[in-house]
Amino acid sequence: MARYFVELAYKGTNYHGWQIQQNAHSVQEEINKALSTLLQEEIMITGAGRTDTGVHAEQLFAHFDSIQPIDAAQLLFKLNSFLPTDIACKQIFEVKEDDHARFSATYRTYEYRISTTKNPFTTELAHYFPYKLDVAKMNEAAELLIQETDFSCFSKSKTDTFTNMCHITEAYWKNHNEQLIFTITANRFLRNMVRAIVGTLLDVGQQKIKVEELTEIIASKNRSNAGKSVPAHGLFLTKIGYPFLKEVKG
Amino acid sequence: MARYFVELAYKGTNYHGWQIQQNAHSVQEEINKALSTLLQEEIMITGAGRTDTGVHAEQLFAHFDSIQPIDAAQLLFKLNSFLPTDIACKQIFEVKEDDHARFSATYRTYEYRISTTKNPFTTELAHYFPYKLDVAKMNEAAELLIQETDFSCFSKSKTDTFTNMCHITEAYWKNHNEQLIFTITANRFLRNMVRAIVGTLLDVGQQKIKVEELTEIIASKNRSNAGKSVPAHGLFLTKIGYPFLKEVKG
Repeated sequence: MARYFVELAYKGTNYHGWQIQQNAHSVQEEINKALSTLLQEEIMITGAGRTDTGVHAEQLFAHFDSIQPIDAAQLLFKLNSFLPTDIACKQIFEVKEDDHARFSATYRTYEYRISTTKNPFTTELAHYFPYKLDVAKMNEAAELLIQETDFSCFSKSKTDTFTNMCHITEAYWKNHNEQLIFTITANRFLRNMVRAIVGTLLDVGQQKIKVEELTEIIASKNRSNAGKSVPAHGLFLTKIGYPFLKEVKG
Repeated sequence: MARYFVELAYKGTNYHGWQIQQNAHSVQEEINKALSTLLQEEIMITGAGRTDTGVHAEQLFAHFDSIQPIDAAQLLFKLNSFLPTDIACKQIFEVKEDDHARFSATYRTYEYRISTTKNPFTTELAHYFPYKLDVAKMNEAAELLIQETDFSCFSKSKTDTFTNMCHITEAYWKNHNEQLIFTITANRFLRNMVRAIVGTLLDVGQQKIKVEELTEIIASKNRSNAGKSVPAHGLFLTKIGYPFLKEVKG
C-alpha cells in the first residue's frame, strides 16, 4: 500500500463545501468517485480541511491510499478529464505512509477578495463592496490579530472543536487588480473565523468599530460582539504548508 | 432632447446575446428596462453591435435619447444598483445628437481567450484547449488576415449583410496569465467571424492546415473550407473606437 498526495483547486459555487455528506453535492464526493472509478478500488480521500458551501480553493492538498502501483502522470491526466470543469487536479505524488493531509499541515492561508467596483466577471469570485473604507485602519486592526490566540469571538457557537486557540502569523490588506484582498495565515482556523474577522475589519474600515475596540471584542470571547460574517463567495483557501513540501506557490 | 453614451461591460453566460428578442433574455432588454424605470420615460438603447449568446463584453458603447436633463453621475450610480450583477455600467456622458453608437464606431476589438491548463475559475470565461499548438505558425497565419478584405469564408451563410468586406488592422496571439489570447481589430466583423477565424487558426496551430493554405481558403469564399467555430464563452468584445472619444482603455 502507498499513500499519495493530490493538489486540488476548485470553484466552490456549485458545491456544498468540501466535505462529503448525505443529499448534498460535495467536492470530496466528486474526487472519491473519480479516483475509485479510475483505479477500480474504493478510494476515500482525506482533505487538509473543510471549506464551507460556496468557498473556493486555489490550493487544497488531500491524501489517499491505494493498494496498487500508480503511474502518477497518467492518473493526473485521466483525473482531470474525469472531474467536472470546476475541479482541477494540479499534481499527484507519493508521500511517506504517515504523511497526513490534515495533521501534517503546519499552516493554511486564506484570502478574502473584495471587489470595490462592480465587476460582471467576478460575481461568484469576489464580494462586491462599493463603500468607502479606511484601509490603513483595517491594517492596524489586522496587525492586532497576530498578538491574539483565543478567537472564540469569531467562532460559530456550535462547533465540535476542543479549543479556540489559533496562531495567526500574517494578516494584512492589499490592493491588487481593482480588488481589495485580505490575506491571513494561521496554523489552524475555527469554523467561519475568516469571514467573521473580515466582517469585523470592514466595520473598522467604515468607522463603526475603533481599532482599539478590537482587543476588547476578542477578550469578550463573545461572537455577538464582533461584526457580521461576509458572504462565502469572496473566500479562497490559497495555500497549505507541509514541512516535507517545498513551496509550490510564489 | 439630448443623446447619451453609456459604456457597458457584461458577462454573457446568462444572456441570449445583446440584442432584444421575443422569449429570450437579452442584455439590451435589461438596460432598456433599467433606464426606462429610472428615468420614467420609454428608453430604447442602441448598441455598437450585437454579441451572440454567451459572448462577453469588457467594453460596449450604446446610446440613448432622453427628453429630460440627466444627472449622469447620479444615473450611473442608480443604474448599477438596478442592473443585475453580471452587467456593469462604467460611464454615462452626453454626446452630440448625431453621434451614433453603431454608425460612428470606427473599429471594434475582440479577444478570444484560451485556457491551456484546466482552470476551475475560468470555465465560463475561457475555452479550455489543452492540446499542443504551434503559436508561431498561428501568428504567421494571423498576419495574412491583415492583407485580406473579403471574409465570406468565415461568415455564417444566412446573414442579412450586403457585403462581406472587412478591414482588419491587427490580429495576433499572445500568452498572458496562463492563457493564450487572440486579439483582432477591424472596422467591422461578420456574424460568427472571429470564432470561425480562431477555429481555423487552431487548425493551423495543430498542423491540420498549412499557413499557405489559409490564403486559398479565404479566396474560396466557402465557409465549409475553413475550420470549425470555437465556443462562444471564450469570446470578449474588448474595445470600440470613436473619433470623438479619447482612448478609455490602455
